[in-house]
Amino acid sequence: MLKPIILFGGQSYEHEISIVSAISLHKAISAQCAFVFLSPDRRFYLIDLIDMKAEHFASGRYKKNRELFLARGGFERKTLFGRTPIDGDVIVSVAHGADGEDGKLAALFEFHSIPYVGPRLEASVLSFNKRWTKFLAQVSEVKTLPYQIVKRGDAINMAYPFILKPLRLGSSIGVCVVKNEADLSYAIDMAFEFDDEAIAEPFIANVREYNLAGCRTGDVWRLSAIEQPQKKEFLDFDQKYLDFTRDEKVKEANLPSETAEALREAFRKIYSRGFDGALIRCDFFITNGEIILNEINPIPGSLANYMFSDYETTLNALIDALPRQKRIAVTYNYIRSIKSAKGKL
Amino acid sequence: MLKPIILFGGQSYEHEISIVSAISLHKAISAQCAFVFLSPDRRFYLIDLIDMKAEHFASGRYKKNRELFLARGGFERKTLFGRTPIDGDVIVSVAHGADGEDGKLAALFEFHSIPYVGPRLEASVLSFNKRWTKFLAQVSEVKTLPYQIVKRGDAINMAYPFILKPLRLGSSIGVCVVKNEADLSYAIDMAFEFDDEAIAEPFIANVREYNLAGCRTGDVWRLSAIEQPQKKEFLDFDQKYLDFTRDEKVKEANLPSETAEALREAFRKIYSRGFDGALIRCDFFITNGEIILNEINPIPGSLANYMFSDYETTLNALIDALPRQKRIAVTYNYIRSIKSAKGKL
Repeated sequence: MLKPIILFGGQSYEHEISIVSAISLHKAISAQCAFVFLSPDRRFYLIDLIDMKAEHFASGRYKKNRELFLARGGFERKTLFGRTPIDGDVIVSVAHGADGEDGKLAALFEFHSIPYVGPRLEASVLSFNKRWTKFLAQVSEVKTLPYQIVKRGDAINMAYPFILKPLRLGSSIGVCVVKNEADLSYAIDMAFEFDDEAIAEPFIANVREYNLAGCRTGDVWRLSAIEQPQKKEFLDFDQKYLDFTRDEKVKEANLPSETAEALREAFRKIYSRGFDGALIRCDFFITNGEIILNEINPIPGSLANYMFSDYETTLNALIDALPRQKRIAVTYNYIRSIKSAKGKL
Repeated sequence: MLKPIILFGGQSYEHEISIVSAISLHKAISAQCAFVFLSPDRRFYLIDLIDMKAEHFASGRYKKNRELFLARGGFERKTLFGRTPIDGDVIVSVAHGADGEDGKLAALFEFHSIPYVGPRLEASVLSFNKRWTKFLAQVSEVKTLPYQIVKRGDAINMAYPFILKPLRLGSSIGVCVVKNEADLSYAIDMAFEFDDEAIAEPFIANVREYNLAGCRTGDVWRLSAIEQPQKKEFLDFDQKYLDFTRDEKVKEANLPSETAEALREAFRKIYSRGFDGALIRCDFFITNGEIILNEINPIPGSLANYMFSDYETTLNALIDALPRQKRIAVTYNYIRSIKSAKGKL
């Protein structure tokens, strides 16, 4: 049985969400875990179980914990005469937002050959930027809403109401519904607070929304219940925060079986575009009988534990089936052939 | 005057090209440089100038050089009582292929706040995979050839002759022109040797090809001469290898000024999609009067030094104008507000 290292934090607008997410995820896992915190200034710390409380981080007391360093195969701590590996086998990342979801941590883990649960580098970049998510959905043959990418000063050519989001952020941060012209300048200020580009999409009042999480392990799909989130106009930051820390399991949405299967099929198409190794959540709309991908959460809050009846089985199966990096053999045959061809170097 | 650290190597099919590229780039720079080699097993080594010969790496003698470690702000070497930074201010990466061009090294440098010349994380991922390059060109409003993404066993629905390339590789490795059915199985074997997916595009015999390199520093565009490469059917691996190590400067292609300007405009459109901080080369076709993007080389061979009349000025200007990462302030205000709202954590 591999020992998970729950990794959280990061230099990100979602740093604080990540702390809450880690605390909540841990409650859903019976296995012994290690906890590694990535501070806002990008130092890693080994956190004792007893210190896994939000206040420990908000107060800065984590700085008294042991600092860790990335090395081949895993984290190391300093010892008197060098460095020694910490106890823990596989990283389970709930570092939401930048660092964790934009591909930086994926790259660090791949570079250091550290096994990790989370989106790989390419999948991270494509799902972090909502522009590329549109193309990812397109090649997956899953519909999305029409959209316009907006830079500061651009006119938005979209009928009211529309929704305006920073291009590269999750967790509803900086997202506004623009009902009429009076809402516009505030929404623009909000969106550009967090990114240089924003995305506008039509806002569909009372749209039916369905969330579905899961992963593929080998040939086996392990999908969660389909949740129809109960919500106000849309979940804002605080609501989502509270939302994914709940203890109750999700109730399966009341849907015709062919609709449920169509949602699962859309999920499988998206996931198949490079998400192996991750447990993701896709948020869909259904409108006019069409399934529309709203968002991909490549590291969903609390790693979506509350959406599964058999969460630990799922997570363990995923850990056992993580993709392996292809190892490239360097032979130096080219240098030798070029050297003889060119007679120099 | 900042001291460049020329970084090369990597766990990549282009590892050996990268060594030759670094040697060639160094010849074009009068400034004192440091040299850091990334070995096939992903260790960094500090290489003395006298050892900057291909044979030093092919023989494995580099393993006797001093190993380096990534740290905040730059590379460090071990000392008796800890670690100390090496002499060098900014990384100039010619790590072609995987690691260097797929976004891993960009992520490492950004994570460690190390200034570097090279494509940022998102631009790396988009230009490394030829599928996403198509979409990048599309949003840049630059034409590309029609294409088909091919998995092992897929039928290729394209008229002969077509060209088959691994989806995620540069330097013409694994690329074949398929003139008729007899060529097909060899081409497929070649392409899938290097990736799980390939891309097929029409092969246009005797197409006019033009290469253009450059960068933007602040508001200033610094573009190379436009080269019309002299070549056989297409440049294979060995030819390209020899090609970018040449000493002569490129001669400006004989083109009507409006055509040259149209090529430069296409370059600027592509570059503007996130390549700030890099010196890239775009390879274009002109066919039926249309400019078509063939490839983006986000780290071109020898960093395209032979294409510029004023290379050092360009490189120094780029080094002085590298993009800065936005620093996100973490306040812990949310945790405090949630804590009081929810009464737990």
